[in-house]
Amino acid sequence: MNAINAYAAQKADQPLGPFKIDRREPGADDVEIEILYCGVCHSDIHTARNEWGATVYPAVPGHEIVGKVTRTGDNVSRFKVGDTVGVGCFVDSCMHCDNCANDLEQYCLNGNTQTYNAWSQDKKTITYGGYSTHIVVTQHFVLSIPENLPLEGVAPLLCAGITTYSPLKYWNVKSGDKVAVVGLGGLGHMAVKLAAAMGAEVTMLSRSPGKEKDAQELGAHHFELTTNPENMKKLANTFDFIVDTVSAEHDYNEYLVLLKTNGIMIVLGAPPSPAPVAALNLIFGRRSIVGSLVGGIKETQEMLDYCGEHGITSDVEVINMDQINEAYDRTIKGDVHYRFVVDMASLKN
Amino acid sequence: MNAINAYAAQKADQPLGPFKIDRREPGADDVEIEILYCGVCHSDIHTARNEWGATVYPAVPGHEIVGKVTRTGDNVSRFKVGDTVGVGCFVDSCMHCDNCANDLEQYCLNGNTQTYNAWSQDKKTITYGGYSTHIVVTQHFVLSIPENLPLEGVAPLLCAGITTYSPLKYWNVKSGDKVAVVGLGGLGHMAVKLAAAMGAEVTMLSRSPGKEKDAQELGAHHFELTTNPENMKKLANTFDFIVDTVSAEHDYNEYLVLLKTNGIMIVLGAPPSPAPVAALNLIFGRRSIVGSLVGGIKETQEMLDYCGEHGITSDVEVINMDQINEAYDRTIKGDVHYRFVVDMASLKN
Repeated sequence: MNAINAYAAQKADQPLGPFKIDRREPGADDVEIEILYCGVCHSDIHTARNEWGATVYPAVPGHEIVGKVTRTGDNVSRFKVGDTVGVGCFVDSCMHCDNCANDLEQYCLNGNTQTYNAWSQDKKTITYGGYSTHIVVTQHFVLSIPENLPLEGVAPLLCAGITTYSPLKYWNVKSGDKVAVVGLGGLGHMAVKLAAAMGAEVTMLSRSPGKEKDAQELGAHHFELTTNPENMKKLANTFDFIVDTVSAEHDYNEYLVLLKTNGIMIVLGAPPSPAPVAALNLIFGRRSIVGSLVGGIKETQEMLDYCGEHGITSDVEVINMDQINEAYDRTIKGDVHYRFVVDMASLKN
Repeated sequence: MNAINAYAAQKADQPLGPFKIDRREPGADDVEIEILYCGVCHSDIHTARNEWGATVYPAVPGHEIVGKVTRTGDNVSRFKVGDTVGVGCFVDSCMHCDNCANDLEQYCLNGNTQTYNAWSQDKKTITYGGYSTHIVVTQHFVLSIPENLPLEGVAPLLCAGITTYSPLKYWNVKSGDKVAVVGLGGLGHMAVKLAAAMGAEVTMLSRSPGKEKDAQELGAHHFELTTNPENMKKLANTFDFIVDTVSAEHDYNEYLVLLKTNGIMIVLGAPPSPAPVAALNLIFGRRSIVGSLVGGIKETQEMLDYCGEHGITSDVEVINMDQINEAYDRTIKGDVHYRFVVDMASLKN
């Protein structure tokens, strides 16, 4: 497919605008997808604005993709034309390292191929993401979407959903566990929904009293202000898990002391500089700080099926493609409940 | 027992010297112990010199105690006069909180009673430690010592031994795991011995080429210089566990990147100020930083039995009580292989 419609960043300091890209003809293992919705992740903004310093321009972001299958290669049996499918943060990997062999393609030891701004496995092309009308992806990296969910709310599950689901499962969050969530954005709102669905008693920790109602509507059982020192003292040693979704500079130690013995703080945001950790806050109470990166393809499918069974989607604000620059500015300000999703019909003409 | 011989710090800036203390008459649940050996832990020095700011003087340190039972209370059935026993870092706890009920007295939620410089559970007296000829301890906190081990080498197991054994067990270090140890002191040399005994492939990470021979004699299979950037690059993503025993300021991130996917860095030393942690070093590779504090009484007994079965003791330098101040200075310089132990016969007269 030549010259299909897309939206690209041409430079770090310029707004995104219309751009034409080519997609490869589907090979034997490929699935061609007409993109219906694409979520807007903070990583898109970091890439478009070269905030991680590795952007190759023009850059077409977007890694929360849902759409319909339009063509399939000869080897593709899991998908047929018309199926509703999804694509997440990566579209290929080496497929043979220890991690790929263990369904952990997100940690591919030879470097997986991110959905945008990344080298393909043959090192010949740079990937273009979901801000486009179509994408072609090798079948292993294509997900099935449950039929009962509204598709615009599914798109963010492919990144924000799996990023929160995977650590909750890996560290075995279960019914009755006390889970605190820090940060009520794209990741945080999914952490609240998923932890609550798993039976945990969920507390939203926030600096903003205004977020209490939102947190409760998402399923949080409690809301606690972190700006109140008396509150923080009361909460010491009370949580089994803390899911920290904040990317701004903040003090991990303030939260570590809220963990019970054997408690685990799951760090999903990456502050711009290293955060100080007092060893004694880990030693007294056998506490852990851990990180986690999205999830493998098998687990992403498991997450989608789980969301289908439990009727879980992301809360989204649907926009047209030409509103993307405004959406970026509002995302940075936290002015979105809780994820922008582009209706790709707006890019068709 | 009144006016028994002990050694005490009277002030932060004065050497330790002879001091007379009283011990309570054994109650129904008490075991009276004649102390034969007492190890010298870095915590003793911190306390004697008030480096943690909470020392009550006069202070009698010492929490790596082995000795013989001299009297027992009426309720004591597990021990009889003449038995060889040990006492570790704490001598009492609330016995009813969730952690005490789960054999985690080291994390007693109501505050356990450390072996020295701590309030007794009735808040009436401050404890005196093992730099003394006798101690009286309630039976739950007294350990049985395997008969086949040299007692001077057993003393440090009560702190350095359990501090390293407990996290290796909790995080399930097993045969074939690749374990790196950072810091070759009292804790580090026990970490090497225990991890090797558990079947792990042990690598000593060090800044000092001179430690290679020592590390190998202790059971390390490999020795790697951390001052060599090429070495560090080669070691990236290679360890399942890193046991970090260093209390001086150092950069956790240098070590985190050496962990494999799902790798765990166990922090046992407490640097004087919080150490920066880059979230991305946790996120890429689902890595953990964790802490751990000695071990519960049940696990300490398990560790002693394990050491008996495997013939493991600490490598020690036996000193007389009046050499303690020199031993402190040499411990701070790292000039000991690997633990000083006081022969308490030297305090008798």
